[in-house]
Amino acid sequence: MDVFVIGIGLIGGSLARDIRRFQEDVRIYGLDDNPAHMNEALRLGLVDEEASYDQLSEADVVLVSIPVDASVRELPKILDKVGDDTLVIDAGSTKALICNTLSDHPKRRNFMACHPIAGTEFSGPTAAIDELYQGKTNIICEVEKTAFKLQERGLELFKKLGMRIRYMNPEAHDKHIAYVSHLSHISSFMLGKTVIEKEKNERDIFDMAGSGFESTVRLAKSSPDMWTPIFEQNKENVLETLEEYIRNLEEFKQKLLQDDYEGIYGEMNNTNKIKEILKGIVPQNKN
Amino acid sequence: MDVFVIGIGLIGGSLARDIRRFQEDVRIYGLDDNPAHMNEALRLGLVDEEASYDQLSEADVVLVSIPVDASVRELPKILDKVGDDTLVIDAGSTKALICNTLSDHPKRRNFMACHPIAGTEFSGPTAAIDELYQGKTNIICEVEKTAFKLQERGLELFKKLGMRIRYMNPEAHDKHIAYVSHLSHISSFMLGKTVIEKEKNERDIFDMAGSGFESTVRLAKSSPDMWTPIFEQNKENVLETLEEYIRNLEEFKQKLLQDDYEGIYGEMNNTNKIKEILKGIVPQNKN
Repeated sequence: MDVFVIGIGLIGGSLARDIRRFQEDVRIYGLDDNPAHMNEALRLGLVDEEASYDQLSEADVVLVSIPVDASVRELPKILDKVGDDTLVIDAGSTKALICNTLSDHPKRRNFMACHPIAGTEFSGPTAAIDELYQGKTNIICEVEKTAFKLQERGLELFKKLGMRIRYMNPEAHDKHIAYVSHLSHISSFMLGKTVIEKEKNERDIFDMAGSGFESTVRLAKSSPDMWTPIFEQNKENVLETLEEYIRNLEEFKQKLLQDDYEGIYGEMNNTNKIKEILKGIVPQNKN
Repeated sequence: MDVFVIGIGLIGGSLARDIRRFQEDVRIYGLDDNPAHMNEALRLGLVDEEASYDQLSEADVVLVSIPVDASVRELPKILDKVGDDTLVIDAGSTKALICNTLSDHPKRRNFMACHPIAGTEFSGPTAAIDELYQGKTNIICEVEKTAFKLQERGLELFKKLGMRIRYMNPEAHDKHIAYVSHLSHISSFMLGKTVIEKEKNERDIFDMAGSGFESTVRLAKSSPDMWTPIFEQNKENVLETLEEYIRNLEEFKQKLLQDDYEGIYGEMNNTNKIKEILKGIVPQNKN
């Protein structure tokens, strides 16, 4: 099987690691704009050789794991180059613009719009790890637009990776993911910013930081190259979540100003049910 | 050595576990308002027997690990009861009100005002774990007000627990901890609230949540009994951090509204330096 990975960072590199473990006779070709990442991927053995778009006609599977603005620009060109029997998968955190962009492409049937909900706050080939996808959810959009035979190839791959599948339309995906992923990143980045700004004058503040702060601010380590175009493409949904979040923070502030500690207690007590909700997700993080 | 633990939850129970491992001939006495927690602590072997305030005169060390409003109420009574050679330690996340309340107490020299920056989002005796304090920071306030011999006993204990010590005045403690701990909790609770409110109408939203959301919302599992009085006692500092946080979120929202993606990139890129800052803290979480 010839697998091409376009963009060999955390997502593409981790896929390469897993495919190599479960697939016999696999050859992995890499493409990356960043020559340092390309060399790193070769050195780490994530890919067997560097490739170019002109070789895509030979591909069985192409994974496109690049920032979502680059995906919108590159996916039409990639589809132009692939063979009739090639499956092209993306991994972008937004789905509506990508699906719209490709809707009239003559090779739309070769494309499967995916969002594997998997990752860490790190990026680049050195961030790639084994079993990143094990037990995680993969959201597939507009599955009916992918050729049946290629759907099967994709699903078989995701099964081997240990993923569970959810089908969703691109608009619903973008709306929901704004709440459970995009907003978390903004809340974390702005928390980091608030504390760093303060720390400029108060050097010893971080000496007091514990694992609670570390956990809450973890996503503020994420790559701006990846996240800026996500916020751009999902602007309307992200704005909606951000407004609700700010409104809730303002209400909390008002309660505190008014010494309404019963109200504050109630807010926290109600939100504690997140415990039960979280039990159902990402269980592998608990092991 | 006779150790009394008043409030046998995560903090008190974890201390009991560690002391039992490194201290020979230790007898641990427990006091807890909650009979279910008391029974649990006995069953788990965290404490050897239940005790009352009247036995405090025999204590070598008393750890007071109860919500900070209860600490302000109970610490004067506890100090009334202890012997001349008893060391009383608290573990509260606020320090100014507690220190002020005790400043004129005849047994002030028996008290050491402490804040071990250690914990998890769980609570109660079953949440107690070994080595919770290993490698963590313990902030001691107004150390000069504690009798020299009792300072030594406290420092020896913290050394055995594996803690590093920082000295700070209570006002500076409360101001700084608002940024690196109290604000994190509010941001996490309100994130949880925002997403739960949305989820009422959109049942499948949590199916899309990954480890990023889980990490950012982790602190929203924390106990309202513990956190309500912390916010009350540290109201002014918490309001200041909360206002700065909301202002940063508003600025981010404005940038998004104005399609200022260069500005958004810049914000995230600047905040990425939290990576370097976090490398210096809670290193044991990385192992």
